[in-house]
Amino acid sequence: MESSLLDTAAAAASLCAAPGGRRRAGSTASFLSCSCSPRDCRVSASYSHSISRMLSGVRLAARRKLFRADPADLLGVANWPEAGGAGHHQQQQQQHWWAALEHNFVLESADDEYGGVVVDADRLPTDKAAFARSLAASLSYWKSVGKKGVWLKLPVDRAEFVPLAVKEGFKYHHAEESYLMMTYWIPDEPNMLPANASHQVGVGGFVINDQMEVLVVQEKYCGSLLDGVWKLPTGFILASEEIYTGASREVKEETGVDTEFVDVVAFRHAHNVAFQKSDLFFICMLRPLSSEIKIDETEIQAAKWMPLEEFVKQPFIQEDHMFQKIMDICIQRLRKCYCGLTPHHVVSRFDDRTSTLYYNVAEPEDVNCSAT
Amino acid sequence: MESSLLDTAAAAASLCAAPGGRRRAGSTASFLSCSCSPRDCRVSASYSHSISRMLSGVRLAARRKLFRADPADLLGVANWPEAGGAGHHQQQQQQHWWAALEHNFVLESADDEYGGVVVDADRLPTDKAAFARSLAASLSYWKSVGKKGVWLKLPVDRAEFVPLAVKEGFKYHHAEESYLMMTYWIPDEPNMLPANASHQVGVGGFVINDQMEVLVVQEKYCGSLLDGVWKLPTGFILASEEIYTGASREVKEETGVDTEFVDVVAFRHAHNVAFQKSDLFFICMLRPLSSEIKIDETEIQAAKWMPLEEFVKQPFIQEDHMFQKIMDICIQRLRKCYCGLTPHHVVSRFDDRTSTLYYNVAEPEDVNCSAT
Repeated sequence: MESSLLDTAAAAASLCAAPGGRRRAGSTASFLSCSCSPRDCRVSASYSHSISRMLSGVRLAARRKLFRADPADLLGVANWPEAGGAGHHQQQQQQHWWAALEHNFVLESADDEYGGVVVDADRLPTDKAAFARSLAASLSYWKSVGKKGVWLKLPVDRAEFVPLAVKEGFKYHHAEESYLMMTYWIPDEPNMLPANASHQVGVGGFVINDQMEVLVVQEKYCGSLLDGVWKLPTGFILASEEIYTGASREVKEETGVDTEFVDVVAFRHAHNVAFQKSDLFFICMLRPLSSEIKIDETEIQAAKWMPLEEFVKQPFIQEDHMFQKIMDICIQRLRKCYCGLTPHHVVSRFDDRTSTLYYNVAEPEDVNCSAT
Repeated sequence: MESSLLDTAAAAASLCAAPGGRRRAGSTASFLSCSCSPRDCRVSASYSHSISRMLSGVRLAARRKLFRADPADLLGVANWPEAGGAGHHQQQQQQHWWAALEHNFVLESADDEYGGVVVDADRLPTDKAAFARSLAASLSYWKSVGKKGVWLKLPVDRAEFVPLAVKEGFKYHHAEESYLMMTYWIPDEPNMLPANASHQVGVGGFVINDQMEVLVVQEKYCGSLLDGVWKLPTGFILASEEIYTGASREVKEETGVDTEFVDVVAFRHAHNVAFQKSDLFFICMLRPLSSEIKIDETEIQAAKWMPLEEFVKQPFIQEDHMFQKIMDICIQRLRKCYCGLTPHHVVSRFDDRTSTLYYNVAEPEDVNCSAT
């Protein structure tokens, strides 16, 4: 699935780029092709656009198939004028009625740039019957005009619509506390919709002072395997948090020690962790700015400054290939035989904002690495 | 939220560790404290355990509060024996009826090691009325016995239960195609449940041959900003895919060229990208093992080997701070003035499996880096 620096950057620039229907794991389709800004994504504009396209582009026969019920019944009109021999007046009447139908029954949505549609979550029908009728009518319409991916975001206060959407063939895509995102892939070809988030990101802080003492913690809920073990402060980064701020925050929360981020010395990639998602864990070197320890009593049993030698001698490190290797790396790093990756703010014209690039080219301000 | 190498590793070892109720962003609670293996998580065991605890530990008065309806009505018995003056026979009868009630109305679930419960998705009631009744009864019970986090996984074929769970106060946590995970945090204190996956992970392949030609592509759906631009092959890694295999796969899919992964030269961290999630993008150096180009016509407009100098001279690189920096790094890497991070398989006793640690300590087999 496309996620070049260009693409991910551009994705953020547009609400309807993210749900774009041209991406799938392993495929290449750039978010950049979505030219609509959030403003352009206003449904009103796109809705009238789709209506006009519907009235102009879709044959009457196709449009008669849009609705499962008889349009005359839906509109509550007695005698629906037949196509074909209908006179000018009747044809006008048909147009009028079709417009009314489409206006009443097709869910308001924005086209995305990948041949898909994004249903407007703020303009859903209010009751279940109306939603069920509109969803069926809309799917028929979207199919008849060759749409591909359909994005249906159901706010939690519309939970009663979820089973109706499932009944229509929509699938769960992802959920956040406030909504459930459902999708429908129309074409008879592999689903190209982008996948849900796949990773959690954790950080561990290697904080060492001038006396070669490491800042370590004992956790309250660490379980028997870690009983009495002194480990590095660790944690998950928060939503939209930087790795370097997350590492310092975790150290501060757990130990009360202020730190300055130095670099990422290594990272670990593991799979099928929490919720069967993958996990990226960044081992970060930090420079202490204070020494007094004040632990987070709800989470931490104890924290202290421990001589590096003593820390490394613990059986849980000595007897574990992974932890041994991590400590080897940190020690190499201390000897300046190793360059970590330092964060650098970069701006790209493709999203006109700053993101963080981690690399280890020695720069004037980088006094932590003599290897390059 | 805890994600130390230990914790994330251990999390994978246990189905009920992942939903454990003691983790939140910024908190520290180790998955390792969950001692139950997937087998131990079998609900049958834990269910009978909870029943016995209910019968022993919960006072009659509390248990009378478990159910909103009168237990007599629920069981369809005429005269429900009152507490207090009840004789031995009546008390026995009460015990019997309570056991029947609990057996009939409390959802089958496994305790997790964080004071929470994980409802068994395979043993949910079959109809809505029974589910609604059981969910209300179960919540009352879990509250009365001091449970914390409740994990309710609703398979897509139980979508009709979603609005019922929302009505009871459950919140959306995350969703995959086959299910919606909902949670309920009982205590009157901050929600400590672990967060949903927060990141997508992308890769870009810098593939250069002995003639200093870079493997580049033009995308079909690249949008006006990238019209005519030659860029590196990029994509998202698949679920549970390694970065090094994902990079080679993307290059192969887009260009037909076989490659050998060399190292990660840098990575970029961006926020609020697709679905407002964050994005980690790894720039990877790869060694070509073949030269013939065969593009993926559905995604790629064109691919070719392009002289490095010509590639870098493109305005979209020259005029972009981020892309300029990335190319600087790649060129430093070519000059061996830079060490990328190479993948190394490591095993930890905490999950008894292999994961991948990326670091740049020069090792005998690492002939790509002379900087360390």
